[in-house]
Amino acid sequence: MSLAQRVASARATMGDVDALALSVGADLPYFTGYTAMHLERLTMLVLRRDGGATLVVPELEAPRVVPHPDVFTIRPWSETEDPVGIVAGLLAGTRRVAIGDQTWATFLLQLQERLPDTVFTLASEITAGLRMRKDADEVALLRAAGAAADRVAGMLTAERFSGRTERQISRLIADLLVAEGHDTADFAIVAAGPNGASPHHEPSDRVIETGDAVVCDFGGSYQGYHSDTTRMFVAGAPPEGFAEAFEVLRVAQDLAVAAVEPGVTAESVDRVARGVIADAGYGDYFIHRTGHGIGLDVHEHPYIVEGNPTILEPGMTFSIEPGIYLPGRFGMRIEDIVAVTDTGVERLNHSPRDLVVVG
Amino acid sequence: MSLAQRVASARATMGDVDALALSVGADLPYFTGYTAMHLERLTMLVLRRDGGATLVVPELEAPRVVPHPDVFTIRPWSETEDPVGIVAGLLAGTRRVAIGDQTWATFLLQLQERLPDTVFTLASEITAGLRMRKDADEVALLRAAGAAADRVAGMLTAERFSGRTERQISRLIADLLVAEGHDTADFAIVAAGPNGASPHHEPSDRVIETGDAVVCDFGGSYQGYHSDTTRMFVAGAPPEGFAEAFEVLRVAQDLAVAAVEPGVTAESVDRVARGVIADAGYGDYFIHRTGHGIGLDVHEHPYIVEGNPTILEPGMTFSIEPGIYLPGRFGMRIEDIVAVTDTGVERLNHSPRDLVVVG
Repeated sequence: MSLAQRVASARATMGDVDALALSVGADLPYFTGYTAMHLERLTMLVLRRDGGATLVVPELEAPRVVPHPDVFTIRPWSETEDPVGIVAGLLAGTRRVAIGDQTWATFLLQLQERLPDTVFTLASEITAGLRMRKDADEVALLRAAGAAADRVAGMLTAERFSGRTERQISRLIADLLVAEGHDTADFAIVAAGPNGASPHHEPSDRVIETGDAVVCDFGGSYQGYHSDTTRMFVAGAPPEGFAEAFEVLRVAQDLAVAAVEPGVTAESVDRVARGVIADAGYGDYFIHRTGHGIGLDVHEHPYIVEGNPTILEPGMTFSIEPGIYLPGRFGMRIEDIVAVTDTGVERLNHSPRDLVVVG
Repeated sequence: MSLAQRVASARATMGDVDALALSVGADLPYFTGYTAMHLERLTMLVLRRDGGATLVVPELEAPRVVPHPDVFTIRPWSETEDPVGIVAGLLAGTRRVAIGDQTWATFLLQLQERLPDTVFTLASEITAGLRMRKDADEVALLRAAGAAADRVAGMLTAERFSGRTERQISRLIADLLVAEGHDTADFAIVAAGPNGASPHHEPSDRVIETGDAVVCDFGGSYQGYHSDTTRMFVAGAPPEGFAEAFEVLRVAQDLAVAAVEPGVTAESVDRVARGVIADAGYGDYFIHRTGHGIGLDVHEHPYIVEGNPTILEPGMTFSIEPGIYLPGRFGMRIEDIVAVTDTGVERLNHSPRDLVVVG
């Protein structure tokens, strides 16, 4: 779908929302191809339902914007201008404005003050429905990103882990992600031994020892779309109790992937993974949802979590990543990106999901 | 100053603000030592003026938090809990809440809905005054970060630029920043030839050619504090007109640094740099402010810009980075971090500011 088609789709679904006001976050590149810098100078697309779309952008960043005059006009602002005033002017006469979910509070509060009669709602109420349903081109980019991440996973199987720090392995993964075609490496969690029990562990100077299980969870940006995969490594023999739990996790991940098909709910997929893990006695140690949508954002709708009744449709893409975390001992997670197809599910990661024994 | 002393200072200056509500951004680590992940799960410190500080954090990220029980208590929330409800409960009875400037709009809108009688203002109205005035320990960290960045600038003088892409040089700089002691490399702008006229240029696959002037603007995080410096390189001989403009820029940067002392305003420093550049006929090509504060954030108060009457005080730290940008031809910028001292100014960058001729 072209940018212009996306804008037309948004306008068709805006209902009583008079305008979208989009800043940092992936809604902006979805409609414009342009990603705002995450800094204190305001960048904001004002997309009115009644026609007209204007990208308000700092003058010094305007050269970064690739123009699409059929989709939006560019309004650069200089350092002594008031960007909030410019946006408020573009929103004149609106009664209901949907603001980008990740927009900074400072800009929302200033806009509320300038437009006291305008009700602000969240842009995701309009954009999530559009962005969740990927077209074939988007799925192809996610497939390519997944394949690049899989090559990195494959290369890691030949590396020595013991004697190196988490941080060193993390840097290596980041370099490999870029070498394999990612534009940026966005994260590379490496969590060894007891650190593995912290799902979002920050790679540290801990030296990996023989007997450590190591969670490697990494991904990057690939022509705007994202990869995200987790594989498990062990230096030498795994710690006591690891193998039994890992077998449970393997089954949970496989069955959750197999449960994905058009027509089922997001939460039902979470229940499949959680049921397997709970039945084996590890329920208290699976402390996060089963997955998250992925696309222009690493985390986006749909979230695969209890309480989310979203019905899966072809073109939805998300992670399936159950984990088991035993505090003080070890942790484990297996993660693939999947796409809902017309009849079922396609995995976008294919590197072996077995526990990989390394030096 | 300890975390507890910072919290005490905040309480002493809150006036009629009943609570601070801090999420992503550097206010949170300023008071807690903890940096929230920039993701969709809410992390928020509720710091009440009448006592009590609670860090609401996703359960799966709670192991990342280093506890400081004298400063705050930790309230992990699980995937099926409602974090906004938890925060709203902690804010019960407040009439005025100052929310972190970078907090996502989604959380502010939800809190406004739950607390319809509460007025929300910006946390920076309280925190900027505290964070702008660095103590000796903070300045020492910024000095160390600057020295590490200077070593990278020095190493670049021995590199061949021509024949390599902007992206390759950018990756090299990022690696050197980490090798020289930064915890992370946050940005490394490399803008060659006409790309230099885009101040926030994204490093591309453009191959650097003989005769290209190259803007290198880079920095990273060093024990929580930031470096940020810009040096100019040229592959072979500079393009026509470059040397004359560069001499103007050198003088503008020097005089602006020399103008820094306690008691003068932020905008007066901007005027010094701008005056020199305008007098030489390049006024229309200096399209950004002269500088920004730096500390736990790369960009923070005080901003060195027309319209900012903030009076400089000892302990304030910021960049002095005038530039000249000639569209289609070339661009240039020279940037140092400086600290206001009791009697004047200290530069925190010392690598040579001359145009560096490379291969």
